[in-house]
Amino acid sequence: MHVLIVLAHPDNESFNSQLTVAARSALEAAGHVVTISDLYAAKFDPVEDGRHYGDRLNTQQFVALAEQRHASKNGTLPRDVQLEIEKLEAADLVILQFPLWWHGPPAVLKGWFDRVFVSGHLYNSKMRYETGYFRGKRAIASVTTGAPASAFGPGARGGEMELMLWPIHYSLHYLGFSILAPEYHFEVSGHGYSYSEESENQKRLQANIEDWSKRVAHLDYERTLTFSGWADWAEDGSSKSPN
Amino acid sequence: MHVLIVLAHPDNESFNSQLTVAARSALEAAGHVVTISDLYAAKFDPVEDGRHYGDRLNTQQFVALAEQRHASKNGTLPRDVQLEIEKLEAADLVILQFPLWWHGPPAVLKGWFDRVFVSGHLYNSKMRYETGYFRGKRAIASVTTGAPASAFGPGARGGEMELMLWPIHYSLHYLGFSILAPEYHFEVSGHGYSYSEESENQKRLQANIEDWSKRVAHLDYERTLTFSGWADWAEDGSSKSPN
Repeated sequence: MHVLIVLAHPDNESFNSQLTVAARSALEAAGHVVTISDLYAAKFDPVEDGRHYGDRLNTQQFVALAEQRHASKNGTLPRDVQLEIEKLEAADLVILQFPLWWHGPPAVLKGWFDRVFVSGHLYNSKMRYETGYFRGKRAIASVTTGAPASAFGPGARGGEMELMLWPIHYSLHYLGFSILAPEYHFEVSGHGYSYSEESENQKRLQANIEDWSKRVAHLDYERTLTFSGWADWAEDGSSKSPN
Repeated sequence: MHVLIVLAHPDNESFNSQLTVAARSALEAAGHVVTISDLYAAKFDPVEDGRHYGDRLNTQQFVALAEQRHASKNGTLPRDVQLEIEKLEAADLVILQFPLWWHGPPAVLKGWFDRVFVSGHLYNSKMRYETGYFRGKRAIASVTTGAPASAFGPGARGGEMELMLWPIHYSLHYLGFSILAPEYHFEVSGHGYSYSEESENQKRLQANIEDWSKRVAHLDYERTLTFSGWADWAEDGSSKSPN
């Protein structure tokens, strides 16, 4: 496999970084080719805006999707966006590695979706969902949390992980990706894993890294999640199934 | 009421901007005081990062929550963050006005959560949920979509709005806000409303603005949504109710 790891964490010694390094090692040891998009290191600008576009369709008003289509067609997409698209096109598997911040991805990753998933080149009204541009490719979220596992679940204090990751999964499904069950790394504090090497917490997190390393090399064989698709919807987008 | 409208749209002639202008007029006409945080106009940087902090607790590693607590305590929060906090403190009602991009808020708004909702000053392990810092204040999401209303709902093509807004609502609930039922503005194209003034679409969207204007001035009297709270959770954060 060609694997793209998209890393969204501001600290290059973070547990997220350690997971990324470990995943790369495990994947390479298994003969896979790995590319990393470290969004913080690249100073990726997540704010979709007219200033990114050199050749504008409309310089009076910035209509994001219209400018994306115009730039897709004319080969004038912003350089950083074009680079990310090329990495996605080359990948068989995409790993999103990020901490859960305010029940979702950090802004730098949310904006990677906003800017890179361009209308026109990557989707249109027919080329979506199971007919999406990236069909045949796989994607997985690998997520760290500060709260312990016990705080997540239906009705639990931290909320339900499946629900919090739904926007990410469904956006990837929209582009045609097959989605793998996420990898969770709970109770990751900013410290702990790096300062107290002998602690129980350190051991737990080290085991977590090892588990992820074992899993990651075989993601091409895992079963993927099920989402609704074209056969489930009426022409107007409503569900054909009674609720 | 003192009302803060947080606007997250790159085009200052957008329907989102029109909704903001209309809401301000209606609120002011009803005697309320309105402040607007136009995140694009302010060039708000949504990427939480060590470079925003002058006086660092730890210059080797950037642990976001630790630096937020340190800066809260020492009065050294980034100036743009401090400004937003002061606006929130002055507000009785917060309106988040944004388009739905990839099943969530634009990155600039996601990062407003990431950076402004600082650990320490705005929350700690006890000062959360119904004991949150902003208890007594209200918040509402006013959301535009490109897809028509028919495409939203359980199993529908565009997903379920309640589910997509849950991370935003629950994050506001975490801070103590009472949450109002969201306002939806469906099928807003980038064009349409401004180029073809006589069209049916233009009439529909104009009616939409008028409905919102009528609603917005009376949000202090509306019933708020229900979320789980401290009484629902065991010490470890798990739900006390059987699922």
